[in-house]
Amino acid sequence: MRNLKNNIRFSGLLIVFTASLFTSFCGLGGGNGASSKSGGAWITPRYMDEVYAFMSGGYSGQVSINGIPSGRIIKQIPVFSVFPENGYGFDEETKGLLMTSQGFLPWDDSHHPVLSLTNGMQDGRWLFINANNTPRIARIDLDWFETKEIIEIPNSAGNHGSPYITENSDYVFAATRFSVPIPQRDIPIESMSKGEFNGTITMVKLDKDGHMSIDLQVRVPAFHYDKSGCGKAVSKDWCFFTSYNTEQAWKMMEAEASQNDKDYILAFNWKVAQGCISKAKTVPGVHYRNYHPENQPAISEKRTTVKMIDAKDCPGSVYYLPTPKSPHGVDVSPDGELIVGSGKLSAQIAVHSFSKLQKAINDKGAIEKTIDGVPVLKYEATLYGEVQKKEKEAGKDYLCLGPLHTEFDNKGRAYTSCFLSNNIMVWDRKTLDVIEGLQTWYNIGHLSVVGGNTVKPYGKYVIGLDKQAKDRMLPVGPELHHLVQLYDISGDKGVFLNEFPTIGEPHYAQMAPAELLAKKSKKFYNLKDNKHPHATLTEDKARVERKGKEVHAYVTATLTHFKPDKIEVKKGDTVYFHVTNLTQEYDMPHGFAVYGAEFPNLLVMPGQTKSAMWKADNVGVYPFYCTDFCSALHQEMQNYIRVSP
Amino acid sequence: MRNLKNNIRFSGLLIVFTASLFTSFCGLGGGNGASSKSGGAWITPRYMDEVYAFMSGGYSGQVSINGIPSGRIIKQIPVFSVFPENGYGFDEETKGLLMTSQGFLPWDDSHHPVLSLTNGMQDGRWLFINANNTPRIARIDLDWFETKEIIEIPNSAGNHGSPYITENSDYVFAATRFSVPIPQRDIPIESMSKGEFNGTITMVKLDKDGHMSIDLQVRVPAFHYDKSGCGKAVSKDWCFFTSYNTEQAWKMMEAEASQNDKDYILAFNWKVAQGCISKAKTVPGVHYRNYHPENQPAISEKRTTVKMIDAKDCPGSVYYLPTPKSPHGVDVSPDGELIVGSGKLSAQIAVHSFSKLQKAINDKGAIEKTIDGVPVLKYEATLYGEVQKKEKEAGKDYLCLGPLHTEFDNKGRAYTSCFLSNNIMVWDRKTLDVIEGLQTWYNIGHLSVVGGNTVKPYGKYVIGLDKQAKDRMLPVGPELHHLVQLYDISGDKGVFLNEFPTIGEPHYAQMAPAELLAKKSKKFYNLKDNKHPHATLTEDKARVERKGKEVHAYVTATLTHFKPDKIEVKKGDTVYFHVTNLTQEYDMPHGFAVYGAEFPNLLVMPGQTKSAMWKADNVGVYPFYCTDFCSALHQEMQNYIRVSP
Repeated sequence: MRNLKNNIRFSGLLIVFTASLFTSFCGLGGGNGASSKSGGAWITPRYMDEVYAFMSGGYSGQVSINGIPSGRIIKQIPVFSVFPENGYGFDEETKGLLMTSQGFLPWDDSHHPVLSLTNGMQDGRWLFINANNTPRIARIDLDWFETKEIIEIPNSAGNHGSPYITENSDYVFAATRFSVPIPQRDIPIESMSKGEFNGTITMVKLDKDGHMSIDLQVRVPAFHYDKSGCGKAVSKDWCFFTSYNTEQAWKMMEAEASQNDKDYILAFNWKVAQGCISKAKTVPGVHYRNYHPENQPAISEKRTTVKMIDAKDCPGSVYYLPTPKSPHGVDVSPDGELIVGSGKLSAQIAVHSFSKLQKAINDKGAIEKTIDGVPVLKYEATLYGEVQKKEKEAGKDYLCLGPLHTEFDNKGRAYTSCFLSNNIMVWDRKTLDVIEGLQTWYNIGHLSVVGGNTVKPYGKYVIGLDKQAKDRMLPVGPELHHLVQLYDISGDKGVFLNEFPTIGEPHYAQMAPAELLAKKSKKFYNLKDNKHPHATLTEDKARVERKGKEVHAYVTATLTHFKPDKIEVKKGDTVYFHVTNLTQEYDMPHGFAVYGAEFPNLLVMPGQTKSAMWKADNVGVYPFYCTDFCSALHQEMQNYIRVSP
Repeated sequence: MRNLKNNIRFSGLLIVFTASLFTSFCGLGGGNGASSKSGGAWITPRYMDEVYAFMSGGYSGQVSINGIPSGRIIKQIPVFSVFPENGYGFDEETKGLLMTSQGFLPWDDSHHPVLSLTNGMQDGRWLFINANNTPRIARIDLDWFETKEIIEIPNSAGNHGSPYITENSDYVFAATRFSVPIPQRDIPIESMSKGEFNGTITMVKLDKDGHMSIDLQVRVPAFHYDKSGCGKAVSKDWCFFTSYNTEQAWKMMEAEASQNDKDYILAFNWKVAQGCISKAKTVPGVHYRNYHPENQPAISEKRTTVKMIDAKDCPGSVYYLPTPKSPHGVDVSPDGELIVGSGKLSAQIAVHSFSKLQKAINDKGAIEKTIDGVPVLKYEATLYGEVQKKEKEAGKDYLCLGPLHTEFDNKGRAYTSCFLSNNIMVWDRKTLDVIEGLQTWYNIGHLSVVGGNTVKPYGKYVIGLDKQAKDRMLPVGPELHHLVQLYDISGDKGVFLNEFPTIGEPHYAQMAPAELLAKKSKKFYNLKDNKHPHATLTEDKARVERKGKEVHAYVTATLTHFKPDKIEVKKGDTVYFHVTNLTQEYDMPHGFAVYGAEFPNLLVMPGQTKSAMWKADNVGVYPFYCTDFCSALHQEMQNYIRVSP
């Protein structure tokens, strides 16, 4: 390194050597990358985490990835909200992903990350997540860890029971949380109580590449559909949706929608519904399907109709299972037999039997009544049992108050999150006996077991996703980040390991073992595969082209300079910067920012091309520079743009 | 809890009891909140972190707070970029903070968080941070942990050497990183090499409440000014700014701006400059000063001029100290005597002496030359010594390659980050002897010691902020989060404790002990102090008011409902929602989102009022709902808005 001065001539090479060459050279003291392993969950540096936890961002609209067991936030994937950090939603490549029938939307509320399945097991291809506010489903590619597609769900509102998936990734589903007039029209809000609103169950078909299209919407009674879970194994043709507000209140729902002792689980046979597509009507349903091809600008397609059918016109597709009380989660056991409805205002957890359901739908005596032509089955006709019933009969306090959501491990146990009693209740899924409670701080919402919604869960860890942190975190003003508690569940008793904050509000998480995903993660875009229409693949092609008042600057970025050396435009020009990162190395983005620009920086991955628009409004000479500290000569990675009158 | 059914009548109380009442009740198994303390840095749950680490977000534009030693990310404070997660930059209260002379800007590149000082010690009032792209300085209030003020810096570009502070928080400073024509005008980019560009040193005055105004801009030669650090104790009237590109190159700077063996530290006597304000000229300098009063809409003030003086016309205010080579950081020892210039392309670290500087400026023989009337002092005239010189003379490999930045502990030691050699070099600040190297993975940029830039550092921990993570993290596509390594420096040798990822790219951090800030952190806005012009302080005042085509909906949010029960408007109306959270409890925000709205959710803290605009474009009935899971009846916190023709 005595010849540092010479090295600046070869700065492109300099950084390549840095990590490999000098690491050993400089091991002068301190840790050596493999210091002693501590107790608890702290991952000693140099030991990778074992598990990827995909967390919804809630009101952030994004997905975060935490490493487990360390709890470290290792990635934020922008999905439904703009993300100034890397230009998502602002640059020409990604802004099309956020187009909707309501225009470009910079935000949504993301709730339930769901991993793709093959034969009921995680296959590591995609992650789906729902937008709750303006109904949509996004597909994230798990090679690139990027949002690749977003489809809008028309004729709905509050897309909460979504995007749970069938066991071979044939469909993801969407359900109307807030029933509305379908089609939308000007009727009094009070019409909700008169049954003039509706919900829909939307079948979103996936092709073999994960592309999404709406196959069918099934119109259902105007309840609020809350969460969902799909069947597996014996019940693989079914999905289940909880409902609340079966009272059809339109105001003060905390009281008015909490009257009925039982609401319903909607059991949906999607195979039967598939058979009804041919007789469904084509109805208005403006929605966007936005697709982001690899390293190219996103394409927004407007679609104007959908196929729709009333549930009553597709007999055998929809049944209601009475379930106490305002059930939130509905979750199916790995063998597909148990359908667990976590009634958030209930004293017990109702467990339905899939085989009893099959008998009941063929038994006229099991039908209690119909609602808008949908059969309501008798509670006892499908009930497998009630968790906590024995505890109640023994006069004990209940162990789980405010149950919300249940997942399963690889040892025959179920884990239910209990919002009010601040714990995870562990129970035997055969006997329904309670095994133990694992404390959470505070007000747990959902939980996740590794592979906990597959036919063969991995188990080992359960995490509880809390709604309150209060006294457990250093105060940082009126709001604290939501907390997670992590338990090791590999032994007979759960062992509390770790506690960590999250981004936004994780409403749900799915966890996958590192070996499923780590090896296939892409390291950079191969330049020779770069088909971007504005790519510049070699420095000698860097240039500025004028088309009337529009200027296209084809910029290359590499260690440690931009080309062209200068950009000269006229006042009033619309300038498009198309920046290609020529580097071909892992973890080596370049950033691109221009003084006064209304676009956030472009964070351009190796081999990638990104574009942004800039209005040359002011005469003068302005710098542009690299925003990601890329080498020892990063500060020097800067040029100028001149705006002449 | 058997009477859960009754409790839904009192849901406002329910949540209040949840954390306190049921926590003890449900301690059935697992941890009890005080499980055994592990080795390493993992903070066993229930033990708070000891230190707040304020990290710049770099290209995120924000500030993150990590708890130390756990490394957990406990807060993101939106500053220069829009933040869909809580509506920052979109709602009517905060969007004024992002106004500039270039219009509303949704992004910037935040670099250096700097805590306010009293008598050279952290006082816990404010945190300042610079915007690098469109030059600005922000002030964050550390009672609320919110951005309260942003001032733009005109006549500059690339505001990097900023916002370092004087020891009694009289001034924060800004310096031009990328010299530009001042005033801006249409001249060839090549004019940079002819000395026709300039930089400025901007003195931003703070009043007793932290309000910012520009006192003076001092025009200086067209170098690139990189980082800065202010004097303390004996040198308290001075600040120091490194420079590079003293070659005045305008392209391919990696080579062309790396020719000179020495560049300069600009020594700036701000007391002398203060005395020149009266003779400075008033020149054009359009800039915004945006202020966000507590719980009220931000106010944007446009200012059109500044006072400016050429350095040569304010003799005694500016000196150049030759410093090898392309120095990045400049940092002053706690006693104010040592001025450490970390020359990133240098083989040694040059340490200047403040007392020698004082002698030199009174010794004509110490002046080597002048540049645009600014005296350049001889290297030897101010040099205290060169760190690593002994190692070099002994024929050893250098211990620190690519030095960037230095901080100090409470034991007479200095810590220099070494980008190329991947380590922190620890050295004795009296003898300049090297003590040890602490490894980092990989390519450390800056570092931070607790209170490391005060007159009396707290010490105990040093963190290194890395630019590369590579093989140390689970792969998540082409880019990894930037890593931090944490060392305990309380003993004779540094002990490696922890490693954790960050948000964006932390270019710098300042750390403060928890006891300085934790007690004064605000828990909620007191409703009776709410002076927001659109506040609704009781439910009975919730209402909808029409003013022509403009509708104002005065909405209240409390556990667990909104008022009014319904909102009815006409197609084409512009609707302003003004949402007041009536809750008066810590960590209990409510969210507010409307189907199809172009504004992100309003995340409204207890006692706070927030407003957003919505165009009623489509006839129909649309839900609005709470986006923050606030209680067992959160799902029920939803109403409708009707849009009639």
